[in-house]
Amino acid sequence: MLQIDGRSMAAELTQELKAEAAELADRGVVPTIAMVLVGDDPSAQSYVRSIRRTADAIDVRCRVVHVAEATAAAVLGAVAELDADPAVHGVIVQSPLPPPLTGLRVDGVLRPAKDVDGATAASAGSLVRDTPGHVPATAAAVIELLDRAGVELRGAHAVVIGRSAVVGKPAALLLLNRDATVTVCHLETRDVPAIAREADVLVVAIGSARFIGPDYVKPGAVVVDVGINFDGEKLVGDVDFDAVLPVAGAITPVPGGVGPLTTTMLLRNVLRAARALS
Amino acid sequence: MLQIDGRSMAAELTQELKAEAAELADRGVVPTIAMVLVGDDPSAQSYVRSIRRTADAIDVRCRVVHVAEATAAAVLGAVAELDADPAVHGVIVQSPLPPPLTGLRVDGVLRPAKDVDGATAASAGSLVRDTPGHVPATAAAVIELLDRAGVELRGAHAVVIGRSAVVGKPAALLLLNRDATVTVCHLETRDVPAIAREADVLVVAIGSARFIGPDYVKPGAVVVDVGINFDGEKLVGDVDFDAVLPVAGAITPVPGGVGPLTTTMLLRNVLRAARALS
Repeated sequence: MLQIDGRSMAAELTQELKAEAAELADRGVVPTIAMVLVGDDPSAQSYVRSIRRTADAIDVRCRVVHVAEATAAAVLGAVAELDADPAVHGVIVQSPLPPPLTGLRVDGVLRPAKDVDGATAASAGSLVRDTPGHVPATAAAVIELLDRAGVELRGAHAVVIGRSAVVGKPAALLLLNRDATVTVCHLETRDVPAIAREADVLVVAIGSARFIGPDYVKPGAVVVDVGINFDGEKLVGDVDFDAVLPVAGAITPVPGGVGPLTTTMLLRNVLRAARALS
Repeated sequence: MLQIDGRSMAAELTQELKAEAAELADRGVVPTIAMVLVGDDPSAQSYVRSIRRTADAIDVRCRVVHVAEATAAAVLGAVAELDADPAVHGVIVQSPLPPPLTGLRVDGVLRPAKDVDGATAASAGSLVRDTPGHVPATAAAVIELLDRAGVELRGAHAVVIGRSAVVGKPAALLLLNRDATVTVCHLETRDVPAIAREADVLVVAIGSARFIGPDYVKPGAVVVDVGINFDGEKLVGDVDFDAVLPVAGAITPVPGGVGPLTTTMLLRNVLRAARALS
């Protein structure tokens, strides 16, 4: 029945990070993120604006590098330059990339220490090995939100619906590394509702508006909705919030749940990188 | 009730790989693995001998590099030299390493293309991203064995008991990438038998002699025993084989199950590396 308030958690974390940034500034380090923006995709531009807003609130410096030419050589060249620049602590290549570049990898070009988006194979591998490394922001936000809501993960059965390389699989590995028993379901899973009903913690990242109803939820379970879908003009999650609210023990709304924390987690990675690199 | 014969599968695969090595040799490429051996640990030496035996059968050339001085600089220096050597296609640092070097990482020193043991974070990350990369041999052997036994993985519920970075987690990711629904259990899991009994495919990698009895197994399930334990002089698995055999639909014995395939899978990685690099 509890609604988990991601907005106030994000505000809280922003204040904590602002204090950390001030400490770094006292030591002469201005934490800096560089965002590589290719072409003129409006949603990429909107993400960059949103990161800049949060960065401004924390006093993290933003550098936007526009790459006009949509070629791998041009993008990787820009990334390599930023990788070598000691004034830059974190580098992201903003998605979505224009079609010829979809799926472009920065492995071997961007060092793991500056890979604040967890985009390289080396960063993904640190989740498997449970060693320090930058975690993709959305998956990190799921865990941060559960921690701030006081949810015990050790020994809990967590079910993750969705197995993408940026959300489902990283979230599953993080939950496993935090001593949860973890099940991952996906399109090929038989009887997802029955498996989901075993979850103490249910994480949904499928990209399908209001797909998850109360038949997927054990009474009292904690439900984390990672979905961002549009129903007309209205932003909705993967979970049918109104229907699930009475069954769940706690649930994140959309908007106002995982979303607000995600950008903040990216900037936390930048601060960690700045500390490690300076 | 079927006993899965890992030895004959390994013999079959060895013949396939021998044919591949011959093709490479026809093109003037002699597939070569370099094994870095630090100190004089008897079990490390025994692993190296066993790899050499299988390599001889396939016509893969072995180079053993002895590092007398047990320092990180000496070991990483040897690895860097082999990484740069165009005549070498795969490099492994043989475990166990002497105590000051336990957990030594070759990230950034060994390129992913030559990391035939899947020891780097970049290789581990390719499992998360489901992109090409070298898979740790034991986890790869689990999948190969299931494939050769004709077990359908798509839509099957696979339960992995054990979450190590070299077996449990890679096996779980491989099963997930093959469209199984995957649950990972471990020491903090409540009621492992109940969860294990949901498995169509049960993979056990816990390192505890004959721990898994028939109460962990759904009638007809496929049981893969990755354990290698000694009961006095006798080699036994993690599964109580005699007790589970009547319940399981198919089961791998120890010895003669996953073990024989493991070395062969390592050498398959070497052949793949040789093809990719030449």
